[in-house]
Amino acid sequence: MSDRESWQAGHGAGIVAALRDAIGADRILTAREQVAPFECDALPVYCERPLAVVLARDEEDVVATARLCHAKGVPLVTRGAGTGLSAGARPYGRGILLVTAAMSRILSVSPASMTARAQPGVLNEQLSTAAAAHGLYYAPDPSSQIACSIGGNVAENAGGVHCLKYGVTVHNVLALRLVTIDGEVLEIGGDCLAQPGYDLLALAHGSEGCLGIITEVTVKLIPLPEQTRTLMADFSSVRAASDAVSAIVRAGVIPAALEMMDALAISATEEFCHAGYALDAAAILIIDLDGAPEEVAAELGLVQEVLGSSGATRVQLARDGEQRQRWWKGRKSAFPAIGRLSPDYYCIDGTVPRHRIGDVLEAIQAFSQRYDLRVANVFHAGDGNLHPIIMFNGREGDALDRVEQLAADILEYCIAVGGTITGEHGVGIEKFNQMAVQFSDAEIGQFLAIKQALDPKGLLNPDKLIPSLAHCQEYRALREGQVEGTNG
Amino acid sequence: MSDRESWQAGHGAGIVAALRDAIGADRILTAREQVAPFECDALPVYCERPLAVVLARDEEDVVATARLCHAKGVPLVTRGAGTGLSAGARPYGRGILLVTAAMSRILSVSPASMTARAQPGVLNEQLSTAAAAHGLYYAPDPSSQIACSIGGNVAENAGGVHCLKYGVTVHNVLALRLVTIDGEVLEIGGDCLAQPGYDLLALAHGSEGCLGIITEVTVKLIPLPEQTRTLMADFSSVRAASDAVSAIVRAGVIPAALEMMDALAISATEEFCHAGYALDAAAILIIDLDGAPEEVAAELGLVQEVLGSSGATRVQLARDGEQRQRWWKGRKSAFPAIGRLSPDYYCIDGTVPRHRIGDVLEAIQAFSQRYDLRVANVFHAGDGNLHPIIMFNGREGDALDRVEQLAADILEYCIAVGGTITGEHGVGIEKFNQMAVQFSDAEIGQFLAIKQALDPKGLLNPDKLIPSLAHCQEYRALREGQVEGTNG
Repeated sequence: MSDRESWQAGHGAGIVAALRDAIGADRILTAREQVAPFECDALPVYCERPLAVVLARDEEDVVATARLCHAKGVPLVTRGAGTGLSAGARPYGRGILLVTAAMSRILSVSPASMTARAQPGVLNEQLSTAAAAHGLYYAPDPSSQIACSIGGNVAENAGGVHCLKYGVTVHNVLALRLVTIDGEVLEIGGDCLAQPGYDLLALAHGSEGCLGIITEVTVKLIPLPEQTRTLMADFSSVRAASDAVSAIVRAGVIPAALEMMDALAISATEEFCHAGYALDAAAILIIDLDGAPEEVAAELGLVQEVLGSSGATRVQLARDGEQRQRWWKGRKSAFPAIGRLSPDYYCIDGTVPRHRIGDVLEAIQAFSQRYDLRVANVFHAGDGNLHPIIMFNGREGDALDRVEQLAADILEYCIAVGGTITGEHGVGIEKFNQMAVQFSDAEIGQFLAIKQALDPKGLLNPDKLIPSLAHCQEYRALREGQVEGTNG
Repeated sequence: MSDRESWQAGHGAGIVAALRDAIGADRILTAREQVAPFECDALPVYCERPLAVVLARDEEDVVATARLCHAKGVPLVTRGAGTGLSAGARPYGRGILLVTAAMSRILSVSPASMTARAQPGVLNEQLSTAAAAHGLYYAPDPSSQIACSIGGNVAENAGGVHCLKYGVTVHNVLALRLVTIDGEVLEIGGDCLAQPGYDLLALAHGSEGCLGIITEVTVKLIPLPEQTRTLMADFSSVRAASDAVSAIVRAGVIPAALEMMDALAISATEEFCHAGYALDAAAILIIDLDGAPEEVAAELGLVQEVLGSSGATRVQLARDGEQRQRWWKGRKSAFPAIGRLSPDYYCIDGTVPRHRIGDVLEAIQAFSQRYDLRVANVFHAGDGNLHPIIMFNGREGDALDRVEQLAADILEYCIAVGGTITGEHGVGIEKFNQMAVQFSDAEIGQFLAIKQALDPKGLLNPDKLIPSLAHCQEYRALREGQVEGTNG
């Protein structure tokens, strides 16, 4: 009997039996073939088989699961739709995986208060679909919006192309129900702009399942824009396109979307779906302006002027919805398009101050040459949220090592220019090491103190998001060694 | 020798001497006449003389003060400009009062990143003045903006008339330096929209000096609007005016300001400063629209249409800057104007969902009659942030008791309709009791756990913001008794 099997037969069997009693045997999966689909999220390099999967139907199931895990000291990982890109929902081998995907009812849509209340398993796009009948929508729109759930959006503080103008998830959620590891239900937030007491609502956002389990989300809805118009601008250098991004915002316009693609991303996409991009451009910007027609017209004029004086070689205004859709289809197909050019690819997610985009793109180019790996860039330029896509062949001996080093170099360069290691994908396991670079021991110490306060036994999603101080020191020493190695 | 004096001579003398050594005797005030101005903030019913006042010059002084208090177990209260309205900066009798008002340098204004970095004692308005040279400003504008400091704004998560469109302080601050009670300096946040790890930046906002001491604030600056136009609408009922507020936002317009005044506030103000308000109106709305001229024109049309169909009896557009200023001068003079009608007044600060404003104003009217106390209303209607002003005569025997009961009834009604007990003034001592009504024991328990995690000895601003569970239970029992008494 392996370690795992003997533990499973003893301590493990106890919790599984107790969960079957409390929740019903049909909601508890343990058979290998039933559990298999839940062994990883959308970053499948990290996989693990949990002791059991609980398919929660409602908050009561969540409370019962938390109470049992707490009483028996068993780790508990929560999973929404499993679309996360940083392995935040990878199960814990000796733990329970709680799946909230079946808690998928929209509880209310209130046009009077411009809010919707939903269970955590409701998909992001379903919220906007339900609100559309009232002329409203939910603004944050991750690329995975047809598949990702609102509970997961909160846990990862998800972004999307609309976040420049409308904010990330934390700016669009008004209230939560959150179950603590000991099974208490907290009602957090409300319809108002601010709440007294410590900001538990913000604390839950991006906490990646490490502080509690989300069982209900109240989102802010906003009126559907009367009109959306789309511009595309070509540039002969990445630097000029980057500077134009800053200049637009500096002119007082906050576009609904402001996306950039570099030459490699353009050519891959154009070949894949004929979006109508200029193959001779070093970079293009795609810009959505939305609002009342008069407002859009005013912004259009201003943005065209700024693009002209920023050295755009061509500026086009989409003549109709069909052309608009085609440009956007290209942007949204960029990842699979780039995927066709390379056996494997890996997408990073760092954010930098808007006015440093040009510097960072040039640095990425230099890193790319150093490690002999191609990098394509297609990203949310307006909020400085980069998505460098590293292309590689996993079957080449040291390719994966070089990819890891290149990714670390890029993320740590983002930190050096005042940015962060993630814009919207979260830390999870993927960026665990870089937390040691972005934060000092004193700052990591505060994170650990908060974790200890709200989950004293450390049962919620262990070994994710916040590394220990020992781990931080170890990683920093390792990186110093690597840098010295490079210089020596 | 009193208890205080004997403690002061013993334990107390130790910390004062140590502070003199570390920081310099001239920065440590202990003489009664020197300490007197610091015994209360702008809610002077709560006063206390601290052991000593430290006038910090820089972060080093703050760190030294925190370290000494931590080592000796002495409470530490931080005070910015002292304009707070909930007694958050009232000193602790056996503690040190740390004043950051002299840390008043603007460290940088960066037009490229549209940010400013400031020491905590910089006054709110000074930020906008410094940014104006670059066509930028800092949006949150509490009524006290010429006197309140940015450090205090963060500690109280301050609001203002512009918060409907531009958010409260937490939405406009990008980064902080925060000193922990054991003297560690944390660098929190950055130029980007979101940060990995738990949201310490949001946690610091509204934490009222209970989690750390702010030593630097980086704020977001936004472009000065090209144009601002102002509408005033008269209504024959408070209910109609309230419904118009919802209808405007529902139509997709977020005005730069959307303020309401009721008949009592109108007549007091009109008499005081001849702002040009209609004395026969039951309520007026004052509405600012800002942006590019075309955008403002579009919004003006839409708002005028909504006002018309919401039953406004008259809608006026300010013909020039002079008329605009006069209308706003009235709004800003409303507090002193109401003050003239009554020996004393007390201003409450609750927030309710926008579509419940009408219900709450009617309830306030009923409470006002029950306690035989006049209440005037002048407030940030757009974000549901009420400021009922209770008029009373403190020399009448039971007046203060009735005021307290009336205030509690109003705040607790705000909670009952899904609102909160504060919009921008904070909890401090003033609303300590109402925390027990707004939050369950499980929720208060989480607040206490966070406090314990970041300030294990409980030295930072003790007995403010978060009541103990025992205190909560006691207050809830008291209120139940009162309600039974009222009904019986």
